Amino acid sequence: MIKLFYAVNTCSLASHIALEEAGAAYTTVRLSFANNEQRGPEYLAINPKGRVPAMVTDRGILTETPAMLAYIAQSFPQARLAPLDDPFAFAQVQAFNSYLCSTVHVAHAHRMRGQRWADDPSAIAAMQRKVPQSVGACFELIERDMLKGPWVMGEAYTICDPYLFTLSGWLEGDGVDLTKLPQVMDHHRRMSERPAVRRAVAAELA
Amino acid sequence: MIKLFYAVNTCSLASHIALEEAGAAYTTVRLSFANNEQRGPEYLAINPKGRVPAMVTDRGILTETPAMLAYIAQSFPQARLAPLDDPFAFAQVQAFNSYLCSTVHVAHAHRMRGQRWADDPSAIAAMQRKVPQSVGACFELIERDMLKGPWVMGEAYTICDPYLFTLSGWLEGDGVDLTKLPQVMDHHRRMSERPAVRRAVAAELA
Repeated sequence: MIKLFYAVNTCSLASHIALEEAGAAYTTVRLSFANNEQRGPEYLAINPKGRVPAMVTDRGILTETPAMLAYIAQSFPQARLAPLDDPFAFAQVQAFNSYLCSTVHVAHAHRMRGQRWADDPSAIAAMQRKVPQSVGACFELIERDMLKGPWVMGEAYTICDPYLFTLSGWLEGDGVDLTKLPQVMDHHRRMSERPAVRRAVAAELA
Repeated sequence: MIKLFYAVNTCSLASHIALEEAGAAYTTVRLSFANNEQRGPEYLAINPKGRVPAMVTDRGILTETPAMLAYIAQSFPQARLAPLDDPFAFAQVQAFNSYLCSTVHVAHAHRMRGQRWADDPSAIAAMQRKVPQSVGACFELIERDMLKGPWVMGEAYTICDPYLFTLSGWLEGDGVDLTKLPQVMDHHRRMSERPAVRRAVAAELA
């Protein structure tokens, strides 16, 4: 059975939701970032990067949200979470998720994780000041050019949707002007009404 | 026919090499970052993110290196560039490439692209100072825990290899201590001897 390692208010929520959407049999292990459990020897043996998410399968351990989401879609094809038989359409799904991972999440991370990229406290403060602008620019691109509606890829719900939902949940805390993002916020509301999303969110808050 | 938009000394080299390895029929368009062509209206119509790589296919446009590499592997299955029939092994390939994209490339980008995340010149200088350490830590993890040898995934050459080759080509410029990375440097040398790699590199330098 799949075991998902997660922490609240992190990108691991995307994989958690996808497992719910897939109807997968899985268990979860919650890590406390407040207690720095992601840096403890027990977890580093599972994921030497010291980050969430990580997923233990019967074949071994997987990390990295885009890879895990594609794995869930491929492992539970009956859930139709990605266009598995169409390499171009699948690549569009992957390109969206890769953008979230490598550009959007990274822009956001400069608010809380600036010490990854600089040591000087004033530099870390300068990074924090730019987050509303840099994250905002990413989401304006998503709003204008990427989010087809009603779901990210159009009529078909895919593994892009829980990932976007997870990151758009951080917008308010990042100080982004939400009034410029009506489609993104509408997507977020629609997502929050899905039973699978409610179950994953409730489990993480419990 | 596929058309690849690239710029020299960027991550687009990974897709360029993969197209060569696949035996794909393709053409290339070189963008000059010095002339800021990636921000010109002609290119922004292709990729509104203003980044490379982008790939025009007969179905439409694709961006994001991990997505493009998986697309090339799936579109040219006879080249055996990824374990396409094994979701777990495919996810391992994807996890490696996602790490390169979202963590390793991002650490490197703080040397030349700090203005993405801060405006203050002293903050940008502070980011540059940390690059040898942050990029070095990523590659020490690759050296110790990820690179199986002789190729990234072991005996099978995959789409992980041109991507690692591309990013390990930046290590010297990033000021990373190469003596700590014998496996990574050995991989880089072995890659540079492959005919497909030679052809892609020569085309970009021509």
